[in-house]
Amino acid sequence: MSPERDSHFMRHAIGLAARGLGRVWPNPAVGCVLVRDGRVLARGWTQPGGRPHAEAVALAKCDARGATAYVSLEPCAHHGLTPPCAKTLVDSGVVRVVTALTDPDSRVAGRGHAMLRAAGLDVVENVEAQAARTLNAGFLMRLAQGRPWVTLKLALTLDGRIATVTGESRWITSPEARRMVHALRARHDAVLVGAGTARADNPDLRVRDLGMMHQPVRIVAAPRLDIDTQGRLGQSAREVPVWLVHASNAPEDARQRWRDAGAELLDCGTNSDGLVPDQMLQVLGQRGITRLFCEGGGHLGASLLRAELVDELIVFSAGKVIGSEGRPGLAQLGLTQLVDAPHFKLTALQQIGDDIAHIWSRQPQ
Amino acid sequence: MSPERDSHFMRHAIGLAARGLGRVWPNPAVGCVLVRDGRVLARGWTQPGGRPHAEAVALAKCDARGATAYVSLEPCAHHGLTPPCAKTLVDSGVVRVVTALTDPDSRVAGRGHAMLRAAGLDVVENVEAQAARTLNAGFLMRLAQGRPWVTLKLALTLDGRIATVTGESRWITSPEARRMVHALRARHDAVLVGAGTARADNPDLRVRDLGMMHQPVRIVAAPRLDIDTQGRLGQSAREVPVWLVHASNAPEDARQRWRDAGAELLDCGTNSDGLVPDQMLQVLGQRGITRLFCEGGGHLGASLLRAELVDELIVFSAGKVIGSEGRPGLAQLGLTQLVDAPHFKLTALQQIGDDIAHIWSRQPQ
Ligand SMILES: NC(=O)c1ccc[n+]([C@@H]2O[C@H](COP(=O)([O-])OP(=O)(O)OC[C@H]3O[C@@H](n4cnc5c(N)ncnc54)[C@H](OP(=O)(O)O)[C@@H]3O)[C@@H](O)[C@H]2O)c1
Ligand SMILES: NC(=O)c1ccc[n+]([C@@H]2O[C@H](COP(=O)([O-])OP(=O)(O)OC[C@H]3O[C@@H](n4cnc5c(N)ncnc54)[C@H](OP(=O)(O)O)[C@@H]3O)[C@@H](O)[C@H]2O)c1
Repeated sequence: MSPERDSHFMRHAIGLAARGLGRVWPNPAVGCVLVRDGRVLARGWTQPGGRPHAEAVALAKCDARGATAYVSLEPCAHHGLTPPCAKTLVDSGVVRVVTALTDPDSRVAGRGHAMLRAAGLDVVENVEAQAARTLNAGFLMRLAQGRPWVTLKLALTLDGRIATVTGESRWITSPEARRMVHALRARHDAVLVGAGTARADNPDLRVRDLGMMHQPVRIVAAPRLDIDTQGRLGQSAREVPVWLVHASNAPEDARQRWRDAGAELLDCGTNSDGLVPDQMLQVLGQRGITRLFCEGGGHLGASLLRAELVDELIVFSAGKVIGSEGRPGLAQLGLTQLVDAPHFKLTALQQIGDDIAHIWSRQPQ
Repeated sequence: MSPERDSHFMRHAIGLAARGLGRVWPNPAVGCVLVRDGRVLARGWTQPGGRPHAEAVALAKCDARGATAYVSLEPCAHHGLTPPCAKTLVDSGVVRVVTALTDPDSRVAGRGHAMLRAAGLDVVENVEAQAARTLNAGFLMRLAQGRPWVTLKLALTLDGRIATVTGESRWITSPEARRMVHALRARHDAVLVGAGTARADNPDLRVRDLGMMHQPVRIVAAPRLDIDTQGRLGQSAREVPVWLVHASNAPEDARQRWRDAGAELLDCGTNSDGLVPDQMLQVLGQRGITRLFCEGGGHLGASLLRAELVDELIVFSAGKVIGSEGRPGLAQLGLTQLVDAPHFKLTALQQIGDDIAHIWSRQPQ
């Protein structure tokens, strides 16, 4: 099989894997394509909740004897609720396995590949590794650093404002941009806002109008738990999870109200800005969150940026200007020198409705 | 000849016309292509200073008998230093003339087309009219409203800042973006900055590194003429024109210093912000400027936006964030409602070096 063909089918597997984003945490989103004589026999991807695995889904659909399996992550090698995928592949009669990445999970970490080779299968590794790494940035980040991959969204006028001086901020961006925000929410495990936004906007934070069954966890950074349980989040916390990250000295009565409303409470250390960003993300990582979509506001976004915890910035720029008395989209960063300004590299750029969307990835300082 | 072919050759003529932008004011930039049997015989475009005209340039290069002339603007009909182009076309033996726009200049205004038809030539009008209108937006604006077309450039971080709290602003954008700014200067008749920028940055405002012979006029909005003649502008005013627009009560000693330095002084009314934007542009229109490139700063840009005088906004966004203590790219606009915010429609979007460039055109409120 030519390297081009291997790349082609692996890209297909990675595309299938993407369907799992936001719904398989804390597991990786994996895709699998079974190919024989250049024809696709079956496709699979990690199912909601993380099981069954992509390989099992694809293998259940066909007789794979003599086929090549393209899997976007090394097959697992450990017995859990089901047999390891490496064994399932061997038993299926597949003769060749092409993978994009070694699974860094300590229970796998090369053992899957070894198991396949021991059974006499032909194994090719690292095909389209970069694309697979990008796709599973959240899973990999959590394994490596214990925290989720963080995407910060900013919806701004051309001059960087989110609201007029009187606070009017509705409809800065177009319906198409707002729809894209909902699609982005759906591809993340959880959505995060600051308590200021929760108080000012009474947001719902659910994915709407995309025929979604699945919803991301809704998280508020609320040190003092100073949010009304009668708002949209409090009233819907039994339908879709709401987590509140708070300081250890948050008032007991507020805790009780939110527990009664059905929310989960997560304890975190504080500093002068509020919750310590690093600790907050560790807490969320411990709870299994791999991909976090932060929708502001400006104070929480600035804290995350200052702590170098924003991996990706998604900016929607609307063709409007408000002027310097308008509310800034980002609060103070405490910089004095330009070299200290967080730097990002462009990864995508498109027109969307009347606006533009530009995506930037963090550059190490 | 098919409409597709006519459009094709007209787009070619408009492309040639663009070579004149910034160097033919107060005349229009026109392109001409002579075609016979589907082959291009000769090309011409308006020469620096506005003469010779595109038709004369092209006709001088070939025997055009039996040809079709594609001209991006109606040929002139009035005797000036040279015979009218309509007559030159008739004399050349051209049998068909295709134009994109009627010249609204009262000395032409349909008379060129009439002269061609009277001589028995086949005349087709309004081919690629929209593209020709866009190209000659400056010429048309000055004829219609007495003012130049205004392009405002903003070079900003993702959060709309131009400098850190200490004023550090060098190298916000990439070398590629800065090169594009020089190319933009070259396509405008004049470059404008506010006195604040002239004082803070001591800019030169010339086109560099593009092998340019031609330079735009450099204009400063300086009500009080409070700018040091020892700066770069003052020291180079005899090489490339410097115009200072000032209030009628500007001090006589400053006037004298700037006259001695070789600058031209232009009088203008004032309001609480400084020069009255509308009057300033009328003054520049009277002096023949058709395309004005404003490079800030934030106060002058805000005044122009507030007066609805910015026709095009060119934003360079660099992948950096500075935070809200950084200097805003635009000063106050005095808005309270979002519906009053100046609106723009996206016309172009591209990556340029490490930055993005997005171009927006004014939408009527
Ligand atoms: N156009 C848009 O896209 C958009 C998006 C989001 C928000 N907004 C607007 O932004 C405004 C709210 O933004 P905001 O900046 O005032 O509030 P915010 O960033 O949403 O919330 C700030 C609050 O979050 C809590 N917090 C916890 N840890 C923090 C940390 N490390 N750093 C900072 N805050 C932390 C604190 O809550 P306590 O005060 O409870 O201690 C703090 O006051 C609203 O007007 C909203 O409409 C607009
Ligand atoms: N990154 C970039 O792309 C960029 C570009 C340009 C400027 N800058 C920075 O911007 C800063 C300067 O900007 P700025 O906003 O302070 O000054 P500015 O807008 O350049 O100039 C303001 C001055 O222009 C004069 N003026 C005349 N008519 C005016 C009107 N209708 N409205 C407003 N001003 C009028 C007044 O001069 P008098 O005070 O003499 O009366 C006024 O104070 C500098 O720090 C510069 O480095 C950055």
